[in-house]
Amino acid sequence: MLYLIGLGLSYETDITVRGLQTVKKCKRVYLEAYTSILMAADQDSLSKFYGKDVILADRELVETGSDDILEGADKDDIAFLVVGDPFGATTHTDLVIRARELGIKVEAIHNASVMNAVGACGLQLYQFGQTISMVFFTDSWKPDSFYEKIMGNRKLGLHTLILLDIKVKEQSFENMMKGKLIYEPPRYMNIATAAQQLIEVEETKKEQAYTENTPCVAVSRLGAPTQKFKAGTLKELASYDSGEPLHSLVMLGRQLHDLELEYLYEYCDDKEKFREFVLQDQEFFKPPPYVAPEEEWSD
Amino acid sequence: MLYLIGLGLSYETDITVRGLQTVKKCKRVYLEAYTSILMAADQDSLSKFYGKDVILADRELVETGSDDILEGADKDDIAFLVVGDPFGATTHTDLVIRARELGIKVEAIHNASVMNAVGACGLQLYQFGQTISMVFFTDSWKPDSFYEKIMGNRKLGLHTLILLDIKVKEQSFENMMKGKLIYEPPRYMNIATAAQQLIEVEETKKEQAYTENTPCVAVSRLGAPTQKFKAGTLKELASYDSGEPLHSLVMLGRQLHDLELEYLYEYCDDKEKFREFVLQDQEFFKPPPYVAPEEEWSD
Repeated sequence: MLYLIGLGLSYETDITVRGLQTVKKCKRVYLEAYTSILMAADQDSLSKFYGKDVILADRELVETGSDDILEGADKDDIAFLVVGDPFGATTHTDLVIRARELGIKVEAIHNASVMNAVGACGLQLYQFGQTISMVFFTDSWKPDSFYEKIMGNRKLGLHTLILLDIKVKEQSFENMMKGKLIYEPPRYMNIATAAQQLIEVEETKKEQAYTENTPCVAVSRLGAPTQKFKAGTLKELASYDSGEPLHSLVMLGRQLHDLELEYLYEYCDDKEKFREFVLQDQEFFKPPPYVAPEEEWSD
Repeated sequence: MLYLIGLGLSYETDITVRGLQTVKKCKRVYLEAYTSILMAADQDSLSKFYGKDVILADRELVETGSDDILEGADKDDIAFLVVGDPFGATTHTDLVIRARELGIKVEAIHNASVMNAVGACGLQLYQFGQTISMVFFTDSWKPDSFYEKIMGNRKLGLHTLILLDIKVKEQSFENMMKGKLIYEPPRYMNIATAAQQLIEVEETKKEQAYTENTPCVAVSRLGAPTQKFKAGTLKELASYDSGEPLHSLVMLGRQLHDLELEYLYEYCDDKEKFREFVLQDQEFFKPPPYVAPEEEWSD
């Protein structure tokens, strides 16, 4: 059996009781180590906590060496650990499809991920539209397909969860060309960079999917002991020092509920100013005022 | 301290290790018992598992008696257990806001909920639009505000997660009038009812937000030992026997990825037929074909 086990967000102890029981009985334990990180634990501390070896699975192993991971899983139990929930990233459905082809049974043990835990910032999950990802821009590569998606969400009045780039075990272009297996230090996008890139794209597109005054919530170290939320405009957050990773950003939609706004007041510097920015931003994508159909007038 | 602790989806052991450690040290332990249920556990089994009393918190207690729940939480640790993740339902942000007013610290211990675990059906979470809820229709009450939301999602090509009604501790109109505190047996909407109601609303609205041939995925007992997925059209699912609760339904959007479709084949009766319905449904909300701007032609 292949067990896909979610580790949750931060601590070793964020694994579920059933997840831990399962890890303990597995013959091999892999830790997916390239789409996210646990903020208060690492390979060593997990290994100690489980009382068994934990094998790091990098992108290469998961995407091209999945048969190594699955070896013997028709007879033995193999655990594949994923930060958050196992079905947060595309590559793991690949692994399940490959297991099926080999006739290996698969069971998932779920856990919290940013996709549902983001509700902790006080915004209602059913008021979110599609989630988008933002990568580090370079001078020559500024992928902005997220812009249309934010526009789509905002036209419907919905909030947008923006997942920020994580670069782990990446080679520099130079080292790749020279065939040197030297990896760059890991990089995690912070809130200021994300906000700056959003503003940059709006300045290029000029379609007002949002403005630099659009209110957002910075979500830092969600689920970790030092978790912090910060509510402010994009412009304010473009100079915000968000501290240690990981970070996500939520851009508000027009349909903000009073209870959501009240909850956010706790996280902003100036309630009144924030409220004004919210009201101002709600003018965008506002539906036209209701006009009764003519038949009703003639009654 | 008030601890909001997610219980996950099904088993007693779906609580996280940290969640369990926290429950064990709390003076009082409340179980929110009206927005969802654990499928393989109940008040008694939880109480046995924790080695301490578990107090059922019904809607009345949470919405009007929150000060009873919070009593002494400035000095003692109080646990408030929620099926899934604590921030799945609006009422719990209420509880946090009230705790803040009373100067009580709050910590959340997250867990999986249908909002992220639905990824187990093979559809990518970032391809979902806003989540909607569907309540039991009566002869005189058929709330259909979800229709516009599905339309919004489908226009963007996105999938829609549809949460199905749960009626726990509800009084009949007759008993309410007579002032009798007699409660109806709990009711959980099944897949067939949800699909029938969706078809009924489309037949009334006739705006083709979807059709009876729109492909969907029935998600039954997600995370439980008897978890089951079924892929089919709305019409097919309108006569599907989905078995024991809980159920959710996903309506597909046009942007279905090949890998998602491949994953779903495992859950449908007839791959080829399902594929045809998918292709047919993708004609709805299709963007017009690309026409190069005139300037380019003149080059």
